[in-house]
Amino acid sequence: MSQFNPTIHPHRRFNPLTKEYILVSPHRTKRPWLGQTEPPQESILPQYDHACYLCPGNSRSGGEKNPDYKGIFTFENDFAAILHPPIPDAPTPLHPLMTAEPIHGACDVLIFHRRHDLTMAQLSPADIAGVIDEWIRIYEKRGSEAGIEYVQIFENKGAMMGCSNPHPHGQVWSLSAIPTIPAQELRSLKEYAVSTINNSNASTGAAGKPCLLCEYARTEMGQPRDEGRVVVFNDHWVALVPWWATWPFEILLLPYRRHIESISRLDPEEKDAFADILSRITRRYDNLFSCSFAYSMGIHQRPVPLNETTQLVAEENDTDFAHLHLHFEPPLLRSASVRKFLVGYEMMAEAQRDLTPEQAAARLRECSEVHYLAKMV
Amino acid sequence: MSQFNPTIHPHRRFNPLTKEYILVSPHRTKRPWLGQTEPPQESILPQYDHACYLCPGNSRSGGEKNPDYKGIFTFENDFAAILHPPIPDAPTPLHPLMTAEPIHGACDVLIFHRRHDLTMAQLSPADIAGVIDEWIRIYEKRGSEAGIEYVQIFENKGAMMGCSNPHPHGQVWSLSAIPTIPAQELRSLKEYAVSTINNSNASTGAAGKPCLLCEYARTEMGQPRDEGRVVVFNDHWVALVPWWATWPFEILLLPYRRHIESISRLDPEEKDAFADILSRITRRYDNLFSCSFAYSMGIHQRPVPLNETTQLVAEENDTDFAHLHLHFEPPLLRSASVRKFLVGYEMMAEAQRDLTPEQAAARLRECSEVHYLAKMV
Ligand SMILES: O=P(O)(O)O[C@H]1O[C@H](CO)[C@@H](O)[C@H](O)[C@H]1O
Ligand SMILES: O=P(O)(O)O[C@H]1O[C@H](CO)[C@@H](O)[C@H](O)[C@H]1O
Repeated sequence: MSQFNPTIHPHRRFNPLTKEYILVSPHRTKRPWLGQTEPPQESILPQYDHACYLCPGNSRSGGEKNPDYKGIFTFENDFAAILHPPIPDAPTPLHPLMTAEPIHGACDVLIFHRRHDLTMAQLSPADIAGVIDEWIRIYEKRGSEAGIEYVQIFENKGAMMGCSNPHPHGQVWSLSAIPTIPAQELRSLKEYAVSTINNSNASTGAAGKPCLLCEYARTEMGQPRDEGRVVVFNDHWVALVPWWATWPFEILLLPYRRHIESISRLDPEEKDAFADILSRITRRYDNLFSCSFAYSMGIHQRPVPLNETTQLVAEENDTDFAHLHLHFEPPLLRSASVRKFLVGYEMMAEAQRDLTPEQAAARLRECSEVHYLAKMV
Repeated sequence: MSQFNPTIHPHRRFNPLTKEYILVSPHRTKRPWLGQTEPPQESILPQYDHACYLCPGNSRSGGEKNPDYKGIFTFENDFAAILHPPIPDAPTPLHPLMTAEPIHGACDVLIFHRRHDLTMAQLSPADIAGVIDEWIRIYEKRGSEAGIEYVQIFENKGAMMGCSNPHPHGQVWSLSAIPTIPAQELRSLKEYAVSTINNSNASTGAAGKPCLLCEYARTEMGQPRDEGRVVVFNDHWVALVPWWATWPFEILLLPYRRHIESISRLDPEEKDAFADILSRITRRYDNLFSCSFAYSMGIHQRPVPLNETTQLVAEENDTDFAHLHLHFEPPLLRSASVRKFLVGYEMMAEAQRDLTPEQAAARLRECSEVHYLAKMV
């Protein structure tokens, strides 16, 4: 029998954060695609669109008027998925299999730039640093509000990803409960910390215990540069296609030098390096298929900032084991118009991918960091 | 403070099968939709398409020619995601966080009907009964092959769901491991069976223990007919929008009269009732927005048929607690062209829905069971 070859032989990989498997079927990229193709991603947009509810000075659907903002502008979503308290208590469930719990919180919209036609890939690192500062401000503000247990910063980019407006913006949903996915990740991080023997090499996380993500980043950084899964790195951050990636060109972005629980703990150098690597990833993404590359991006970190006075008694809860990281989940597979559909088998059984994470990382390593439109601010 | 109203107040519901929460934000349907719309679902197709690789007598991409089949036709996928054994063993992992296991199996394609222009909603119940018989045949055939641990029967319907050919067909992927989602469901079913006190009302499942799904179906059937989540039922099967539905018009379809582990255990009456209810659900779906309604459908049941001789010592493994059920997961939300995107918050944090399951069930209850095209075979 031939030797195992991950680019030929179907196999399953384990995601230690979600505790789910992913089916890898690399030979499958050979099949012809006869299904739905995506409309071209608009790349020529006006700098200002009078019909855009995010452009400076324009009216929003809720009736309010945007100020003539210059840089970044944050406002509360006019159609928020979560509402401010009070939310009345749910009645006793009809049956223990049918439970509901009330939830409250707030949904913020964060505009990255006044220009309608730009995306993060076209912003300067200095502009991106401004976005990072605003993320920190909102994380700290919402995270200290009464009853808020979790702050989720994310961006839906591209119509393909359900984004209803190309004006560069992200969202922040703050809630009175820790949602399913980060709750599972935090459990996994704690489990790893308490059950893994700390050896001399192991990276140190909360309470001096091993950190799954620090350890993983350190291992990937130890691989030869032209192999493996690392796409790009700088002095503080590494962007890689994780071993367990689900989406074709998924990226995990994280600081690898030291254990950092949240964006609040970044020092100025780490913040600059964060802006630098966000710029480099998003340009590579756009260059991969010469289009405005669609994705959903989210920041996972300590659910809410730690109150300094409670720090000494902490390091017991799942939340104490967070290590800051970002997920980029882009749907495109073969070209600007052919995406991966996670449907059928994936919805009923298990995620499945058509190229190996190593193949995806190699493709992204080859991409230039000069934007294909070379239309920088 | 006002009383809790599930159609106004955001809340979270718990899915006892996946152990995940879902965020319900019913007030959100009021927001205007400015995002991507779906192209019209083609409903006028030829009865025979010479370019279709599934039509009788045509050549497939692998080069083989389809026979001039009359009813149902099954063949192995020319671009299978899983391959037949042998698959060599994976090497020792580089690091415990990077594990891979080889997988083998087979992918079958099951054509429902020779006519290119029909869907399940347009087939007669007698034709659907033929599809059910074929599902049973493949489940038993693949499920008894050496090393096969799981058989997943599913259908991707509609271009929106990544289906690359409108010719009515489904798929069956058989694998040497139980995938993530059904493995979790089976764990939940076993956990419920062993930890729930059996009261006089509780439905009986494996080893006389309570069955989560039998109990849930029984409870829903006990609700007033014009309220709640039941969409349609017959003597053996009930179709409902589950309390914990993720997709806007998601349906859970299951037998409610007795505990049934797999399609192999259906008696002739239950099989006819299965065909009847599949026909009624799919017609209601098409009638909801007067279009060929896209969905992914999957059958969850005992992973592989039980070998009769081992039955007596069984009822110990998770797999012994299976109760046959089907999931229908359709993306459309507001009309034939506006879908729900599960992106951003949903990919990073937790599933979120914009109308309550009760509202969705009421909408589906109002739909006619006579197909809007009234183009029956
Ligand atoms: O096999 P098909 O129908 O060509 O492909 C479709 O279903 C598969 C199984 O759900 C998915 O992996 C593919 O992404 C999807 O396009
Ligand atoms: O809030 P938006 O951008 O209008 O809406 C988008 O993002 C939300 C959060 O990920 C999703 O729930 C919506 O389905 C999607 O269309």
